[in-house]
Amino acid sequence: MKLVKNAIGRLVPTEINGEKQIPYQGVDKYKAKGVKYAVKIPSNSDFPRDGNKTVANLKDALIKSGLKDGMTISTHHHFRNGDLIANQIFDIAKELGVKNLRWYPSASFPCHEHLIQYLEDGTINRIEGSMNGALGRFCSLGEMKGTAVLRSHGGRYQAVQDGEVKIDIAVIGAACADPFGNANGLYGQSASGLLGFALADSEYADKVIVVTDNMVKFPCIPWQIQGNHVDYTVEMDKVGIPEKIISGTTKITKSPDRLLLAEMTAEFCDVTGIIHDGFSFQTGAGGTSLSVSQYFADIMRKRDIKARFARGGSNKYLVSMLEEGLIEYILDGQTFDLEGVRSMAENNNHVWSSPFTSYNYHSKGNFAGLVDVVILGATEVDVNFNANVATHSDGYLLHGIGGWQNCLFSKTVILPIPLFRDRIPVIRDEVTTVCGPGELIDVIVTERGIAINPLRTDLIEKAKDSGLLIKTIHELKEEAERICGKPEKVELGDEVVAVIKWVDGTVIDAVRRVI
Amino acid sequence: MKLVKNAIGRLVPTEINGEKQIPYQGVDKYKAKGVKYAVKIPSNSDFPRDGNKTVANLKDALIKSGLKDGMTISTHHHFRNGDLIANQIFDIAKELGVKNLRWYPSASFPCHEHLIQYLEDGTINRIEGSMNGALGRFCSLGEMKGTAVLRSHGGRYQAVQDGEVKIDIAVIGAACADPFGNANGLYGQSASGLLGFALADSEYADKVIVVTDNMVKFPCIPWQIQGNHVDYTVEMDKVGIPEKIISGTTKITKSPDRLLLAEMTAEFCDVTGIIHDGFSFQTGAGGTSLSVSQYFADIMRKRDIKARFARGGSNKYLVSMLEEGLIEYILDGQTFDLEGVRSMAENNNHVWSSPFTSYNYHSKGNFAGLVDVVILGATEVDVNFNANVATHSDGYLLHGIGGWQNCLFSKTVILPIPLFRDRIPVIRDEVTTVCGPGELIDVIVTERGIAINPLRTDLIEKAKDSGLLIKTIHELKEEAERICGKPEKVELGDEVVAVIKWVDGTVIDAVRRVI
Repeated sequence: MKLVKNAIGRLVPTEINGEKQIPYQGVDKYKAKGVKYAVKIPSNSDFPRDGNKTVANLKDALIKSGLKDGMTISTHHHFRNGDLIANQIFDIAKELGVKNLRWYPSASFPCHEHLIQYLEDGTINRIEGSMNGALGRFCSLGEMKGTAVLRSHGGRYQAVQDGEVKIDIAVIGAACADPFGNANGLYGQSASGLLGFALADSEYADKVIVVTDNMVKFPCIPWQIQGNHVDYTVEMDKVGIPEKIISGTTKITKSPDRLLLAEMTAEFCDVTGIIHDGFSFQTGAGGTSLSVSQYFADIMRKRDIKARFARGGSNKYLVSMLEEGLIEYILDGQTFDLEGVRSMAENNNHVWSSPFTSYNYHSKGNFAGLVDVVILGATEVDVNFNANVATHSDGYLLHGIGGWQNCLFSKTVILPIPLFRDRIPVIRDEVTTVCGPGELIDVIVTERGIAINPLRTDLIEKAKDSGLLIKTIHELKEEAERICGKPEKVELGDEVVAVIKWVDGTVIDAVRRVI
Repeated sequence: MKLVKNAIGRLVPTEINGEKQIPYQGVDKYKAKGVKYAVKIPSNSDFPRDGNKTVANLKDALIKSGLKDGMTISTHHHFRNGDLIANQIFDIAKELGVKNLRWYPSASFPCHEHLIQYLEDGTINRIEGSMNGALGRFCSLGEMKGTAVLRSHGGRYQAVQDGEVKIDIAVIGAACADPFGNANGLYGQSASGLLGFALADSEYADKVIVVTDNMVKFPCIPWQIQGNHVDYTVEMDKVGIPEKIISGTTKITKSPDRLLLAEMTAEFCDVTGIIHDGFSFQTGAGGTSLSVSQYFADIMRKRDIKARFARGGSNKYLVSMLEEGLIEYILDGQTFDLEGVRSMAENNNHVWSSPFTSYNYHSKGNFAGLVDVVILGATEVDVNFNANVATHSDGYLLHGIGGWQNCLFSKTVILPIPLFRDRIPVIRDEVTTVCGPGELIDVIVTERGIAINPLRTDLIEKAKDSGLLIKTIHELKEEAERICGKPEKVELGDEVVAVIKWVDGTVIDAVRRVI
């Protein structure tokens, strides 16, 4: 495997899985050539005129779709850890003796540990998508036949749109669908809110199968997935395990340390003027992020201002802010609790978005850059503000990239992170895996002080006399090392087990085998 | 110009405007090869990161879009006869000395008579789109430089999607938009309901300009047009003349003759079981069609049943049926009055559709085939049920095809038409222009009897003892000729001034010069 040093100084392969790769060239530096992937022109004459595309079961649908060796099968992760579809697909593939498949999920979850047997026996060649838990460990130990590829949500759309990943068969599980293939995630026992992660799959896959446990008479409204892209529909008893699809409630953190980080983050946004009437923000679904939005709400109430929009991951806290009038719109990419699902169904200003609208770098702009402030996590940050979100300091793949890379294009990016976790410092000379370039990361909030990227002289100026504890990132690093000692660099093997794509399809880093 | 006889016996050219044409081969016979048109891959780096794509005016936007000789410029017709955009575009083109443009509107209206000067001086080479009034006359008399091409709404989407028509610059007028380019037709002084006719343009044009007189702060919700496809946005005082965009009210016919046709049509649908609980229908916006839906409503009330959905053109009558609970969903392609606009904004089950979802023959099915009954008009019908909707019996182009061809795929197609108009029989041995093949047209309702297509033995059987006045189409034709005399065939020139495309992009007929 030939490796070259890319623009951020990381050694990355020029070819994986027999496909040429382009090394990362810097933010906004690589310009794609060529045209979007063009799907075959379908004809109405190949589809039932009455619109009924229902076939008896998933196996029939896969056979009719021409399932065969070497194909790429895509699924989405709106059912999260309650997904019952992906495992079934590969059970069927195994039964049919099909080999060497590429699984292209928008994310994988612990429930997919079932698939390790198929990675071992050659049914599946590799996963291109996030891996955590047992799958992450399997891949990290170098046991997957092919090389994994991790992409952001926007990068996944981009890869499909640009033809980097040609999906042969997309299987789209839906809480609600009609026999024509219109589908949404809003209604039914498996409701998850929206189906945005399956949008690219529906538009670009050669064959599209919609599977539901709630088949309604045409028209299924809203048609988050349009039946005009769908080949076959399948009704089954259960597409997911409701309580694992979506939590009944989301909870803000009770940890005093995390609450402190959240409060400091909100205060920083307040004193620097980031929180202003008509501003916009995105916070994730983690406990700290949820708390940040609560502190935001307090500030907005106190100052009698409102936000123009919040980007979701939506949850009951964001919904209550919407319904209280603190937020005009929620632009939602993924619904995390039942209140989010209810709100999306009831409130016209709780809007479903997709990786195309929100995150696709290869479109005529996307929404990420319009967000005033985004609050994200990281496993590690280096002294140049480069950050890691995919691996832990021990080298194991443990998180997907999600929308993290895409959100870095927001106007201000803040990472509230503890200075150390389990006595392992989070700020390092070098991160284990570079997932995002430091020039896009503006502020690190730790319990022992806030570091502002030197590029953001405007924020440094605004925070100067605020009373906030501002430090350099070097000071923070040294402080952590004084307490925990300087962390040893983890020893990893030479073998590349996964690559991390940047939002433009170039390779920003490679993940080595854990030894 | 080489002409060949196509599958429905019409002589059609094999090449027009320098482009090869495929003669019509029959319903469901021609199978497109190849792939959909692939647009260039854009990059976020070429667009402002803060999402503000606003430029000073339409002229600047056209210049930035690279307007030059020979380009294809598209517009939509949601502003109908109140459109102020298309004329401005070509005024600017004229001012810049640009020549030989192709105008690709989704329809033209009398207000576009202004463009005749540019057709004459070579600014515009030809129009591909419906022409009526002065433009229809101009084209019919052979005065347009290029050959016109008339397509259905679905055919227009198909032609763009398949790359038959490559749009260089799309100009999308919107009642409401944000600086990023998200747009809808719902709010503002120029509200017209939806923007579905501009969907293909936004997706496939090389450059996309959104023009609005109601620029709102991001996000413009709903984003019927997605800003991620848009290059430039322009704010101007007035994109349309409200009272010509949309009528304050739509009115059912008061003509006793037309009311009779409507009543007979509804009665036919009742006795043949077409009206049943959960059925679906589409009626147009003409007075007769509006009346049909009123008779449908009466029958549904009497029988205590409801329709699953109605396809719009929506209007106050359809809206009142929705709000009364007689219809569960309106799937709307074009909003005809202010009540329609209000309802679309207020009722989540008044759904905006597009020629992609509703009419595109080159997709994996469309909605047209799912409609139980569609009520359409025609200028002429022949004894084989072939019908004309584009020209009158004098040969002049006077109507666009609209969704008419696409709707022929519905389960039952009924044409309520007078037996003669101005003493000119409507049922003929041969129609002046074939727009739709008779095998798809099921029933002709005239004031002197109803003719059922012999292919529909099921309907013939059901209507047999109904008391309805059922006749053969030959009997109807003879009856008209007894009263009016046999119509003389109009003498037309040899020159082909326009072609009529079938839904699959093949040429079903040619329109000759009027002499």
